[in-house]
Amino acid sequence: MTTPLQNDLYLRALNRQETPRTPVWVMRQAGRYLPEYLKVRAQAGDFMTLCSTPELACEVTLQPINRFNLDAAILFSDILTIPDAMGLGLHFETGEGPKFSHPVRTRADVEKLPIPDPNDKLRYVMDAVSTIRTELNGRVPLIGFSGSPWTLATYMVEGGGSKDFSKVKGMLFSDPATLHELLDRTAQSVISYLNAQVDSGAQALMVFDTWGGVLSPANYREFSLHYMQQIVDGLTREADGRKVPVVLFTKNGGQWLDIMANTGCDGLGVDWTMDLADARARIGERVALQGNLDPSVLYGSPESIRTEVKRVLDSYGAGPGHVFNLGHGIHQHVDPEHLGVMVEAVRTLSAR
Amino acid sequence: MTTPLQNDLYLRALNRQETPRTPVWVMRQAGRYLPEYLKVRAQAGDFMTLCSTPELACEVTLQPINRFNLDAAILFSDILTIPDAMGLGLHFETGEGPKFSHPVRTRADVEKLPIPDPNDKLRYVMDAVSTIRTELNGRVPLIGFSGSPWTLATYMVEGGGSKDFSKVKGMLFSDPATLHELLDRTAQSVISYLNAQVDSGAQALMVFDTWGGVLSPANYREFSLHYMQQIVDGLTREADGRKVPVVLFTKNGGQWLDIMANTGCDGLGVDWTMDLADARARIGERVALQGNLDPSVLYGSPESIRTEVKRVLDSYGAGPGHVFNLGHGIHQHVDPEHLGVMVEAVRTLSAR
Repeated sequence: MTTPLQNDLYLRALNRQETPRTPVWVMRQAGRYLPEYLKVRAQAGDFMTLCSTPELACEVTLQPINRFNLDAAILFSDILTIPDAMGLGLHFETGEGPKFSHPVRTRADVEKLPIPDPNDKLRYVMDAVSTIRTELNGRVPLIGFSGSPWTLATYMVEGGGSKDFSKVKGMLFSDPATLHELLDRTAQSVISYLNAQVDSGAQALMVFDTWGGVLSPANYREFSLHYMQQIVDGLTREADGRKVPVVLFTKNGGQWLDIMANTGCDGLGVDWTMDLADARARIGERVALQGNLDPSVLYGSPESIRTEVKRVLDSYGAGPGHVFNLGHGIHQHVDPEHLGVMVEAVRTLSAR
Repeated sequence: MTTPLQNDLYLRALNRQETPRTPVWVMRQAGRYLPEYLKVRAQAGDFMTLCSTPELACEVTLQPINRFNLDAAILFSDILTIPDAMGLGLHFETGEGPKFSHPVRTRADVEKLPIPDPNDKLRYVMDAVSTIRTELNGRVPLIGFSGSPWTLATYMVEGGGSKDFSKVKGMLFSDPATLHELLDRTAQSVISYLNAQVDSGAQALMVFDTWGGVLSPANYREFSLHYMQQIVDGLTREADGRKVPVVLFTKNGGQWLDIMANTGCDGLGVDWTMDLADARARIGERVALQGNLDPSVLYGSPESIRTEVKRVLDSYGAGPGHVFNLGHGIHQHVDPEHLGVMVEAVRTLSAR
């Protein structure tokens, strides 16, 4: 029934199996740095229309695969779809990033939050997943994703992005029970959301903990990692007779790789502030590593891009288990040709 | 000639000498969370007038000492005084943070940059230092400070604050020689600026590397730490027959504490994303540690503030060499009473 995968380098690397070269994909690979993306974005009118129209979400998901022959596709969506489906009223103010009309501030706010049925209010995401999977037609695997409970909670409590996280940390320190209730409902929602993505065709899963790195070690364990552990435990780990690998990524979480690896996930994202050699020394053979070129390297010359790609590959060193990626999402103002140089350098320099 | 210090706990702790309790001060302790500060700020009219009027700078420097009996005063000034004195045209746009009228983008821009004479264009800072030292009258030591060369360079090249540091990292990767020339001139300027602060009365020095943590490990060593090493090597380390300790602080630089300690500095600032026990395990007995309560703890209840203060003190554990501080500057919207709770908790819980 399902088309066999023609390129499974990404899945093999996450299973720590040998591959003829290092697979490569890029966080936010479908995005504003691509002129073809901007065209579809303009056609859609606004960002949420783009996310919620499966044909358009599929089109932009495939653009970087077509242009760069990357080794994995990732669902084009927003990380705030779950809070939106909970009724928080997601909207985007020009130049201001995401906002919620109904932020969560009190125990009563939290107790009103439903666990959204992924096949109802989030049906549009599942439709995008199945449309993309069909259109990919086995070229490369499709990655589904979600924000981590802590990361989603920061937006839900702050009402949008934040610089100092005063409201959510205020809740953490003055009313931790309410924050735990919020995180628990969010974690349950993430589990059913990601499992529905697998049912719809996702072949690997990634959890983005963008803001875990703003916590102290003790708070990170209690308010972020604990809920990612619940997610890893609650996920469907096999589909089409094949393992569905799970990758956790905490930005600025390099020092916590060891405890993250203990969750039973298959891979860890690593940002560029840590050498992969050090990361590997910490986690041993337990999990694969994904990363970790500084996205700003792509502002440099083609020659310096090649040098820095080599530095990352050398830092990981010999043996399986490396998925090449940037250490964070690609920047908006990068020249797409420079990403092409990076991808080509990974292919050439990692060939075994 | 100089008034003897009545409270030298801070200097003793930085020298890793025994103290009857842990000394405490707070980054950005003179600032917008204090109503008495806002009053003087309004009187001054604008921020740079406040910095450049020695009597007003002195007044706000002493406000938190008077209110909380902290164990050290820190010069009230801006970190961008050096680039301003180099001719970049510092100004503040409402709600937008600092901006430079003449950012540094090319080799020619860099080669035009003078090393400012601290007793000419930066005379107002030296006057503030000597005024504060006189007014302190030996109550507590006075800390002088500067931004690190890398941190200053980010503002100089970007023309202000930045989210992704695209311009300065573009220079780093495509024209590293120009960036090195900029950093070298800036480091020379910082050395003469800090030495002039010591000549004017500063009794300890701190270098704030706010943005070193956005670099990869290799880039951090080459573009930030290398120049902080130059500074440590070039500083006057004794005044009034007493050692002038130097503290380096790289935000999000926890994993580099070991190489930072090798510079020969006396203390390291630690942000809240690392346990002090781990930090101490990394640096051994080489340097003192300053930190590291999450500034957001002060949004919590008095009870939770005491719990978290205890956690930090316990994490450092027994033995000398700890200066209590927040892991970053105090937030603007904190209730000053909460800082009072924190200070009192440090005094009580650390008494030996």
